Amino acid sequence: MRIITISREFGSGGRELGKRLAEGLNIPCYDHEIIELIAKENGFDENYIARVSESFIVAAYPATIGSHMMDYSMMNNVQLETQATQRKIIRAFAEKGDCVVVGRAADIILRDYNPLNIFVYASQDAKLQRCRERAKEGENFTDKEMIRKMKQIDKGRALYHNLLMDEAWGKKESYHLCINTTDTEIKNLIPALVPYVNAWFENKK
Amino acid sequence: MRIITISREFGSGGRELGKRLAEGLNIPCYDHEIIELIAKENGFDENYIARVSESFIVAAYPATIGSHMMDYSMMNNVQLETQATQRKIIRAFAEKGDCVVVGRAADIILRDYNPLNIFVYASQDAKLQRCRERAKEGENFTDKEMIRKMKQIDKGRALYHNLLMDEAWGKKESYHLCINTTDTEIKNLIPALVPYVNAWFENKK
Repeated sequence: MRIITISREFGSGGRELGKRLAEGLNIPCYDHEIIELIAKENGFDENYIARVSESFIVAAYPATIGSHMMDYSMMNNVQLETQATQRKIIRAFAEKGDCVVVGRAADIILRDYNPLNIFVYASQDAKLQRCRERAKEGENFTDKEMIRKMKQIDKGRALYHNLLMDEAWGKKESYHLCINTTDTEIKNLIPALVPYVNAWFENKK
Repeated sequence: MRIITISREFGSGGRELGKRLAEGLNIPCYDHEIIELIAKENGFDENYIARVSESFIVAAYPATIGSHMMDYSMMNNVQLETQATQRKIIRAFAEKGDCVVVGRAADIILRDYNPLNIFVYASQDAKLQRCRERAKEGENFTDKEMIRKMKQIDKGRALYHNLLMDEAWGKKESYHLCINTTDTEIKNLIPALVPYVNAWFENKK
């Protein structure tokens, strides 16, 4: 079974890499889908869940950036429900067969499936540029604000990851392959990454 | 031009990966060759140079392990000569064309050639096992001694690297691709790594 988990720095293109890799391998990629399922099960508004799911801990920090304000009083219950539901759903996906899972600490949640764990990162300049290219109309963050936002989101990811297991998010030791996307066109790496991933699974001792 | 530099933790198989990758790309791999050239230019004994070249700083620490004792009084002159000669030779190699350079802080020395910088690492258990498999007859290090040796050598590599440039050896940010060789058969990754490397060079923005 080929389970690939993608962890990534905000703005590094990890989600794109995961999606394209899954296409290249002809297997499903789980990301928004997970959130939608959580939303359905819990009956919460999808956008709200999207914001509180993986990065819920960010809410503990002053949320100076973002178009929605969160209901802090609800966080603890939502946290517990979301976490438990996420784990259940992610494991159900893995149970179904080969897949790519982006984020959601899947590297830890799916540990017993022996996944290939990939970390995607980039220089701060490259991440800033990517965020700018993908910014919604009307977003007018300064570089400083954007960098603060990126750091805040990554901090949330790291805290979530490290809460589940005492292991360092973003430290190369936690992953099998770390890919720096600075100055590279992700879509053009995929035809080479697909055989790499297959070779990794075939040749695992 | 495809210049690939391999940095690696001791025992992770980085040298093997570099050599096999160069074969796969059909380009030269520089490693021992560099040391031999240094030896010729400086008129030193080759084994001696091999020990003092990259990891010369290790000598500043108690050398409790190793079959040769070093002449500490000579270190400073040897350091300077070795460093300068290494830089010269490594750059001369790169000037000749496509190549893989293993270690010797080539990622920094060849920075203006826009190399693909790969870091190779593995879990401590995997490195220990690799060292055991490759141990010369008569070597009888305990695990504890072997781990101390591995750490000492990596410390030397890090110090040498960070002396040349204020950048962290072994931190993923310093590399384009970080490969964890734990539980993987290096030779079987090469047919997948070769297209990856070529794609990286072709698609560099």
